[in-house]
Amino acid sequence: MSNTTGQVIKCRAAVAWEAGKPLVIEEVEVAPPQAGEVRLKILFTSLCHTDVYFWEAKGQTPLFPRIFGHEAGGIVESVGEGVTHLKPGDHALPVFTGECGECPHCKSEESNMCNLLRINTDRGVMINDNKSRFSIKGQPVHHFVGTSTFSEYTVVHAGCVAKINPDAPLDKVCILSCGICTGLGATVNVAKPKPGSSVAIFGLGAVGLAAAEGARISGASRIIGVDLVSSRFELAKKFGVNEFVNPKDHDKPVQQVIAEMTDGGVDRAVECTGSIQAMISAFECVHDGWGVAVLVGVPSKDDAFKTHPMNFLNERTLKGTFYGNYKPRTDLPNVVEQYMRGELELEKFITHSIPFSEINKAFDYMLKGESIRCIIRMEE
Amino acid sequence: MSNTTGQVIKCRAAVAWEAGKPLVIEEVEVAPPQAGEVRLKILFTSLCHTDVYFWEAKGQTPLFPRIFGHEAGGIVESVGEGVTHLKPGDHALPVFTGECGECPHCKSEESNMCNLLRINTDRGVMINDNKSRFSIKGQPVHHFVGTSTFSEYTVVHAGCVAKINPDAPLDKVCILSCGICTGLGATVNVAKPKPGSSVAIFGLGAVGLAAAEGARISGASRIIGVDLVSSRFELAKKFGVNEFVNPKDHDKPVQQVIAEMTDGGVDRAVECTGSIQAMISAFECVHDGWGVAVLVGVPSKDDAFKTHPMNFLNERTLKGTFYGNYKPRTDLPNVVEQYMRGELELEKFITHSIPFSEINKAFDYMLKGESIRCIIRMEE
Ligand SMILES: NC(=O)c1ccc[n+]([C@@H]2O[C@H](COP(=O)([O-])OP(=O)(O)OC[C@H]3O[C@@H](n4cnc5c(N)ncnc54)[C@H](O)[C@@H]3O)[C@@H](O)[C@H]2O)c1
Ligand SMILES: NC(=O)c1ccc[n+]([C@@H]2O[C@H](COP(=O)([O-])OP(=O)(O)OC[C@H]3O[C@@H](n4cnc5c(N)ncnc54)[C@H](O)[C@@H]3O)[C@@H](O)[C@H]2O)c1
Ligand SMILES: [Zn+2]
Ligand SMILES: [Zn+2]
Ligand SMILES: [Zn+2]
Ligand SMILES: [Zn+2]
Repeated sequence: MSNTTGQVIKCRAAVAWEAGKPLVIEEVEVAPPQAGEVRLKILFTSLCHTDVYFWEAKGQTPLFPRIFGHEAGGIVESVGEGVTHLKPGDHALPVFTGECGECPHCKSEESNMCNLLRINTDRGVMINDNKSRFSIKGQPVHHFVGTSTFSEYTVVHAGCVAKINPDAPLDKVCILSCGICTGLGATVNVAKPKPGSSVAIFGLGAVGLAAAEGARISGASRIIGVDLVSSRFELAKKFGVNEFVNPKDHDKPVQQVIAEMTDGGVDRAVECTGSIQAMISAFECVHDGWGVAVLVGVPSKDDAFKTHPMNFLNERTLKGTFYGNYKPRTDLPNVVEQYMRGELELEKFITHSIPFSEINKAFDYMLKGESIRCIIRMEE
Repeated sequence: MSNTTGQVIKCRAAVAWEAGKPLVIEEVEVAPPQAGEVRLKILFTSLCHTDVYFWEAKGQTPLFPRIFGHEAGGIVESVGEGVTHLKPGDHALPVFTGECGECPHCKSEESNMCNLLRINTDRGVMINDNKSRFSIKGQPVHHFVGTSTFSEYTVVHAGCVAKINPDAPLDKVCILSCGICTGLGATVNVAKPKPGSSVAIFGLGAVGLAAAEGARISGASRIIGVDLVSSRFELAKKFGVNEFVNPKDHDKPVQQVIAEMTDGGVDRAVECTGSIQAMISAFECVHDGWGVAVLVGVPSKDDAFKTHPMNFLNERTLKGTFYGNYKPRTDLPNVVEQYMRGELELEKFITHSIPFSEINKAFDYMLKGESIRCIIRMEE
């Protein structure tokens, strides 16, 4: 047992003091985990669009100061009362959504939308006592989606922590905490393409590339990438994308272009853009009789999904997914094993790696569209 | 082999000469079946809303004179060249949609929307030669959806004829040709409720009652009927419906009423109304995480299905079905066996029975909303 158990830990964290302003590395105090909580030593973290989105705080209620970060790998430092599935020294991935194990969603085989630990981007405190475990000179600093991994130590609800194979390299598997599993699971758990089938992927950002990786793993033979930025195709080839459509290159709606390319439509489509127009196109481009479209992108508040109901009656299916339908504690260890067996290729998602002290560079790479994933090495 | 093989048969048929005018029993000539066709002696037929709809011809291109009828049971009189799965004497159900066995839909496990034999309400001729097999004194009379069962003999594409157990009573199983299988299959093949689950059925006409029967057979414990006509509830109880909601009795949207009754939503919803508002409500009343809604009703041309995309992202599924996803030739014999084993109760759908000479009464019963199914006895 570590000698920090039960103590406040002082460590470095990258604090966002204001919307859109560079993070500042500060010394923070991290309180011990309470009942049902875990304190993790974070070794590697990576940056996802959702961090940038809430850091920019355009549209949402701003909540500052705050410690962002929700894709990470680390080691359990200590556990709070009642935590039985984790112990100090365990290798673990924190996740922005959780698995309480008790609610109807956790008991359902189909859902991963735990009532207790479902993502809440507005909450800046722990659910146990509605307080923060982070402070700077006694002043609380807000949490972000229950993970706040841009800190050398963080406190997370135990239901949001997956225990994984200690042999797995944390600087690779840390990216499974969010975007990669979201896209991967959208394809393998929800769209479920058959070997030899055709799959259209709308949006070739990190999530879309992971969806393409899922199609490649599933043995799809035609993987059609759709993006407004044609340069994305070159990169996407590594992820199995073997055809490309830029909607801007056509006068016809993209769903019609795809239907003509595929003799009536693709077998599966996965939308990873957040654009309502892409959502509608993704649905309307699947084949009648058996086509399945899966929505992943987060839409705007005022968006409306609109289509003629005959598109459903002609035996098309539309589903949405949250975190690729993975249950964090139950399923994530198996995804790590898929990587360990060489089935899932994570290295190609990692385009950059930087020391913690240079964390603001990760924001630059993402804002310029240069990176897929940038690994942040916490010990440097 | 019958001595009528290869001959024109003269027999009685109920001919619709004009939109909305009573049918007239006429002597018609029925040509022998051509290659790939079958001539059936119809023993029992029943009336479905779709017959009435095209007979009224409000909205669609009128096609008269025409012989309606598409739910029936009969016996194969003779078969055309190349027909191997049927022979004279076989008991059979004709269906308005078919199974060519060769197209991508027929080869797909999931689809029943055969490219060749998919329903076509505008066509009044056989696909072999674009001609009718019916005539009156040499003048052709149009077919309806390839079945035209309001005739003592009819010619049907062999791909649209299911061979069934000869012990099955044709005056009961004839109703499986359309509406009953549509509703039943929407539940058992597409919505697939688990034992003990909750199912909402929108619309308690023949199709909705069959969907309820499917929920009862599946072991659903809460079957919530939704209809604008409260008197439908009494009848629906026989079909397993054990709760009832009339949207008119509430100020809140019905999806919200149902969500409150069921702690967040039903497990499954099946829409059998044709109303776009009911389609949207049926989707929005299913539980997040695992809810599945199935659309069955035929919408108007200008309808738009509209919902917030978050309703999908919260892990709801929306599907549509055509003929309950049954493949006519492959699956219908098994539905007949389900009836023979006493699992499926068909008797309760049959509210009336009349001789062929009184066929116009069946239209009256349906227009007054008095009947679920009225059996028409062809030999009387
Ligand atoms: N459901 C979940 O659990 C979950 C989790 C993480 C991310 N997301 C969402 O997934 C989406 C993708 O995330 P990302 O990080 O890959 O984003 P990204 O911005 O890196 O990639 C989006 C891509 O979509 C393309 N695009 C935009 N509009 C398009 C259109 N109309 N047609 C075709 N392509 C279009 C863009 O050019 C870009 O390449 C976002 O909406 C994000 O919020 C969802
Ligand atoms: N998809 C297919 O293969 C297929 C096959 C046959 C029939 N259908 C369609 O199924 C639907 C039902 O057929 P039916 O013969 O049972 O019709 P029906 O008219 O007998 O029954 C429809 C019921 O829905 C109710 N209703 C109407 N609007 C409603 C609303 N907004 N909310 C709640 N209830 C509402 C009516 O009061 C009525 O009781 C029709 O649209 C028909 O065209 C589809
Ligand atoms: Zn839970
Ligand atoms: Zn993320
Ligand atoms: Zn076919
Ligand atoms: Zn019908």
